[in-house]
Amino acid sequence: MDIDFEKSGGLVPAVAQDAATGQVLMLAWMNRDAYEETLQTGRAVYYSRSRGKLWRKGEESGHVQEVRGVYVDCDADTILLKVHQVGGAACHEGYASCFFREVKPDGFKVIAEKVFDPKAVYKK
Amino acid sequence: MDIDFEKSGGLVPAVAQDAATGQVLMLAWMNRDAYEETLQTGRAVYYSRSRGKLWRKGEESGHVQEVRGVYVDCDADTILLKVHQVGGAACHEGYASCFFREVKPDGFKVIAEKVFDPKAVYKK
Repeated sequence: MDIDFEKSGGLVPAVAQDAATGQVLMLAWMNRDAYEETLQTGRAVYYSRSRGKLWRKGEESGHVQEVRGVYVDCDADTILLKVHQVGGAACHEGYASCFFREVKPDGFKVIAEKVFDPKAVYKK
Repeated sequence: MDIDFEKSGGLVPAVAQDAATGQVLMLAWMNRDAYEETLQTGRAVYYSRSRGKLWRKGEESGHVQEVRGVYVDCDADTILLKVHQVGGAACHEGYASCFFREVKPDGFKVIAEKVFDPKAVYKK
Protein backbone atom coordinates (compact mmCIF):
# COMPACT_ATOMS: atom_id res chain seq x y z
CA MET A 1 0.00 0.00 0.00
CA ASP A 2 1.10 3.52 -0.74
CA ILE A 3 -0.29 7.04 -0.89
CA ASP A 4 -1.92 7.66 -4.28
CA PHE A 5 -0.03 10.74 -5.44
CA GLU A 6 -0.93 10.15 -9.07
CA LYS A 7 -4.69 10.71 -8.94
CA SER A 8 -4.35 14.48 -8.57
CA GLY A 9 -1.15 15.06 -10.49
CA GLY A 10 1.37 14.45 -7.75
CA LEU A 11 -0.24 16.32 -4.88
CA VAL A 12 -2.61 15.14 -2.17
CA PRO A 13 -4.42 17.25 0.41
CA ALA A 14 -3.13 17.00 3.97
CA VAL A 15 -5.24 18.06 6.93
CA ALA A 16 -3.45 19.14 10.11
CA GLN A 17 -5.37 18.61 13.33
CA ASP A 18 -4.28 19.58 16.82
CA ALA A 19 -3.43 16.29 18.50
CA ALA A 20 -4.51 17.50 21.93
CA THR A 21 -7.69 19.48 21.23
CA GLY A 22 -8.90 18.01 17.95
CA GLN A 23 -9.14 21.44 16.36
CA VAL A 24 -8.65 21.35 12.60
CA LEU A 25 -5.78 23.75 12.00
CA MET A 26 -5.26 23.91 8.26
CA LEU A 27 -5.22 22.11 4.96
CA ALA A 28 -2.16 22.09 2.75
CA TRP A 29 -0.70 19.87 0.02
CA MET A 30 1.96 17.23 -0.07
CA ASN A 31 3.94 15.68 -2.87
CA ARG A 32 5.91 12.51 -2.28
CA ASP A 33 9.00 14.38 -1.14
CA ALA A 34 7.01 16.38 1.41
CA TYR A 35 5.32 13.23 2.70
CA GLU A 36 8.55 11.31 3.04
CA GLU A 37 10.37 14.17 4.73
CA THR A 38 7.45 14.53 7.14
CA LEU A 39 7.69 10.85 8.06
CA GLN A 40 11.46 10.99 8.40
CA THR A 41 11.76 14.20 10.40
CA GLY A 42 8.56 14.14 12.45
CA ARG A 43 7.85 17.70 11.40
CA ALA A 44 5.16 18.69 8.91
CA VAL A 45 6.48 19.44 5.45
CA TYR A 46 4.08 20.52 2.73
CA TYR A 47 4.36 21.50 -0.91
CA SER A 48 3.60 25.12 -1.61
CA ARG A 49 1.57 25.35 -4.79
CA SER A 50 2.13 29.11 -5.03
CA ARG A 51 5.89 28.91 -4.52
CA GLY A 52 6.34 25.60 -6.34
CA LYS A 53 8.61 24.06 -3.72
CA LEU A 54 8.70 22.25 -0.41
CA TRP A 55 7.37 24.22 2.50
CA ARG A 56 8.81 23.26 5.84
CA LYS A 57 6.03 24.61 7.99
CA GLY A 58 7.45 27.10 10.48
CA GLU A 59 10.73 27.61 8.63
CA GLU A 60 10.18 31.36 8.73
CA SER A 61 7.99 31.86 11.80
CA GLY A 62 9.45 29.10 13.97
CA HIS A 63 5.92 27.74 14.34
CA VAL A 64 6.73 24.19 13.33
CA GLN A 65 4.28 21.32 13.60
CA GLU A 66 5.57 18.34 15.54
CA VAL A 67 3.86 15.28 14.12
CA ARG A 68 2.15 12.99 16.61
CA GLY A 69 0.51 10.69 14.08
CA VAL A 70 -0.02 10.27 10.33
CA TYR A 71 -3.23 8.77 8.97
CA VAL A 72 -4.46 7.95 5.50
CA ASP A 73 -8.01 7.74 4.20
CA CYS A 74 -9.82 4.85 2.54
CA ASP A 75 -8.80 5.90 -0.97
CA ALA A 76 -5.21 6.61 0.14
CA ASP A 77 -5.41 10.01 -1.49
CA THR A 78 -5.71 12.23 1.58
CA ILE A 79 -3.46 12.53 4.62
CA LEU A 80 -4.38 13.51 8.15
CA LEU A 81 -1.66 14.73 10.49
CA LYS A 82 -2.15 14.99 14.22
CA VAL A 83 0.30 17.62 15.36
CA HIS A 84 1.54 19.76 18.18
CA GLN A 85 1.55 23.29 16.82
CA VAL A 86 4.52 25.17 18.27
CA GLY A 87 3.60 28.79 18.99
CA GLY A 88 -0.08 27.95 19.24
CA ALA A 89 -1.04 29.25 15.82
CA ALA A 90 -1.04 27.46 12.47
CA CYS A 91 -2.33 30.36 10.39
CA HIS A 92 -0.05 32.98 8.92
CA GLU A 93 -2.71 35.52 9.83
CA GLY A 94 -2.07 34.82 13.51
CA TYR A 95 -5.00 32.58 14.32
CA ALA A 96 -4.73 29.14 15.92
CA SER A 97 -6.59 27.66 12.96
CA CYS A 98 -6.83 28.83 9.38
CA PHE A 99 -10.57 28.18 9.70
CA PHE A 100 -11.20 31.32 11.74
CA ARG A 101 -14.23 32.41 9.74
CA GLU A 102 -17.70 30.94 9.72
CA VAL A 103 -19.95 31.12 6.68
CA LYS A 104 -23.12 32.93 7.69
CA PRO A 105 -26.09 33.96 5.56
CA ASP A 106 -24.73 37.51 5.43
CA GLY A 107 -21.12 36.56 4.72
CA PHE A 108 -17.96 35.33 6.41
CA LYS A 109 -17.73 36.12 10.11
CA VAL A 110 -14.49 35.95 12.14
CA ILE A 111 -15.10 33.62 15.09
CA ALA A 112 -11.64 33.47 16.70
CA GLU A 113 -9.09 35.69 18.39
CA LYS A 114 -5.58 36.14 17.06
CA VAL A 115 -2.84 34.33 18.96
CA PHE A 116 -0.07 36.50 17.55
CA ASP A 117 0.47 39.61 15.48
CA PRO A 118 1.62 38.54 11.99
CA LYS A 119 3.63 41.74 11.57
CA ALA A 120 5.75 40.87 14.59
CA VAL A 121 6.38 37.28 13.47
CA TYR A 122 6.97 37.76 9.75
CA LYS A 123 9.53 40.50 9.74
CA LYS A 124 9.94 40.76 6.02
CA MET B 1 -15.93 37.60 0.01
CA ASP B 2 -16.56 34.30 -1.65
CA ILE B 3 -15.09 30.82 -1.84
CA ASP B 4 -12.29 30.69 -4.41
CA PHE B 5 -13.48 27.90 -6.67
CA GLU B 6 -11.30 29.02 -9.55
CA LYS B 7 -7.86 28.34 -8.10
CA SER B 8 -8.20 24.58 -8.51
CA GLY B 9 -10.39 24.42 -11.55
CA GLY B 10 -13.78 24.66 -9.91
CA LEU B 11 -13.34 22.31 -6.97
CA VAL B 12 -12.20 22.96 -3.42
CA PRO B 13 -11.46 20.41 -0.71
CA ALA B 14 -14.01 20.12 2.07
CA VAL B 15 -13.14 18.52 5.39
CA ALA B 16 -15.97 17.01 7.43
CA GLN B 17 -15.43 16.96 11.18
CA ASP B 18 -17.73 15.48 13.80
CA ALA B 19 -19.26 18.48 15.55
CA ALA B 20 -19.53 16.68 18.89
CA THR B 21 -16.27 14.75 19.13
CA GLY B 22 -13.94 16.70 16.85
CA GLN B 23 -13.03 13.54 14.92
CA VAL B 24 -12.03 14.26 11.33
CA LEU B 25 -14.39 12.08 9.30
CA MET B 26 -13.44 12.54 5.66
CA LEU B 27 -12.28 14.86 2.94
CA ALA B 28 -14.27 15.33 -0.22
CA TRP B 29 -14.66 17.99 -2.90
CA MET B 30 -17.17 20.71 -3.58
CA ASN B 31 -17.97 22.75 -6.63
CA ARG B 32 -20.12 25.84 -6.33
CA ASP B 33 -23.36 23.91 -6.78
CA ALA B 34 -22.42 21.47 -4.02
CA TYR B 35 -21.45 24.31 -1.70
CA GLU B 36 -24.63 26.26 -2.29
CA GLU B 37 -26.86 23.22 -1.91
CA THR B 38 -25.06 22.39 1.34
CA LEU B 39 -25.76 25.87 2.68
CA GLN B 40 -29.36 25.81 1.53
CA THR B 41 -30.30 22.33 2.72
CA GLY B 42 -28.12 21.95 5.82
CA ARG B 43 -26.94 18.58 4.56
CA ALA B 44 -23.48 17.92 3.17
CA VAL B 45 -23.38 17.78 -0.62
CA TYR B 46 -20.08 17.07 -2.35
CA TYR B 47 -18.93 16.71 -5.93
CA SER B 48 -17.83 13.22 -6.87
CA ARG B 49 -14.75 13.43 -9.06
CA SER B 50 -15.06 9.78 -10.07
CA ARG B 51 -18.74 10.02 -11.00
CA GLY B 52 -18.55 13.59 -12.29
CA LYS B 53 -21.69 14.76 -10.52
CA LEU B 54 -23.11 16.02 -7.25
CA TRP B 55 -22.92 13.55 -4.41
CA ARG B 56 -25.56 14.04 -1.77
CA LYS B 57 -23.74 12.26 1.05
CA GLY B 58 -25.95 9.46 2.36
CA GLU B 59 -28.25 9.37 -0.65
CA GLU B 60 -27.67 5.63 -0.95
CA SER B 61 -26.80 4.56 2.59
CA GLY B 62 -29.06 6.98 4.46
CA HIS B 63 -25.98 8.13 6.36
CA VAL B 64 -26.45 11.82 5.71
CA GLN B 65 -24.37 14.54 7.34
CA GLU B 66 -26.39 17.22 9.10
CA VAL B 67 -24.37 20.41 8.94
CA ARG B 68 -23.81 22.22 12.23
CA GLY B 69 -21.40 24.84 10.92
CA VAL B 70 -19.51 25.84 7.77
CA TYR B 71 -16.07 27.43 8.00
CA VAL B 72 -13.63 28.76 5.44
CA ASP B 73 -9.87 29.07 5.63
CA CYS B 74 -7.64 32.12 5.27
CA ASP B 75 -7.22 31.68 1.52
CA ALA B 76 -10.94 30.93 1.04
CA ASP B 77 -10.04 27.82 -0.91
CA THR B 78 -10.85 25.13 1.65
CA ILE B 79 -14.08 24.41 3.50
CA LEU B 80 -14.55 22.85 6.92
CA LEU B 81 -17.92 21.36 7.80
CA LYS B 82 -18.86 20.50 11.34
CA VAL B 83 -21.48 17.79 11.05
CA HIS B 84 -23.63 15.27 12.80
CA GLN B 85 -23.00 11.99 10.98
CA VAL B 86 -26.24 10.01 10.88
CA GLY B 87 -25.55 6.30 11.30
CA GLY B 88 -22.27 6.95 13.06
CA ALA B 89 -20.03 6.18 10.10
CA ALA B 90 -18.83 8.49 7.35
CA CYS B 91 -16.75 5.94 5.48
CA HIS B 92 -18.22 3.65 2.85
CA GLU B 93 -16.03 0.91 4.28
CA GLY B 94 -18.03 1.03 7.50
CA TYR B 95 -15.70 3.02 9.71
CA ALA B 96 -16.68 6.16 11.62
CA SER B 97 -13.88 8.03 9.86
CA CYS B 98 -12.25 7.45 6.50
CA PHE B 99 -8.94 7.93 8.33
CA PHE B 100 -9.04 4.49 9.90
CA ARG B 101 -5.43 3.63 9.06
CA GLU B 102 -2.27 4.97 10.60
CA VAL B 103 0.98 5.23 8.67
CA LYS B 104 3.59 3.17 10.50
CA PRO B 105 7.19 2.39 9.53
CA ASP B 106 6.08 -1.05 8.32
CA GLY B 107 2.98 0.13 6.44
CA PHE B 108 -0.62 1.16 6.99
CA LYS B 109 -2.22 -0.21 10.15
CA VAL B 110 -5.99 -0.25 10.78
CA ILE B 111 -6.62 1.56 14.08
CA ALA B 112 -10.44 1.55 14.25
CA GLU B 113 -13.37 -0.84 14.47
CA LYS B 114 -16.10 -0.96 11.84
CA VAL B 115 -19.42 0.60 12.83
CA PHE B 116 -21.38 -1.21 10.13
CA ASP B 117 -20.97 -3.92 7.54
CA PRO B 118 -20.75 -2.26 4.12
CA LYS B 119 -22.35 -5.29 2.44
CA ALA B 120 -25.48 -4.85 4.53
CA VAL B 121 -25.77 -1.11 3.85
CA TYR B 122 -24.90 -0.95 0.17
CA LYS B 123 -27.18 -3.60 -1.29
CA LYS B 124 -26.08 -3.25 -4.86
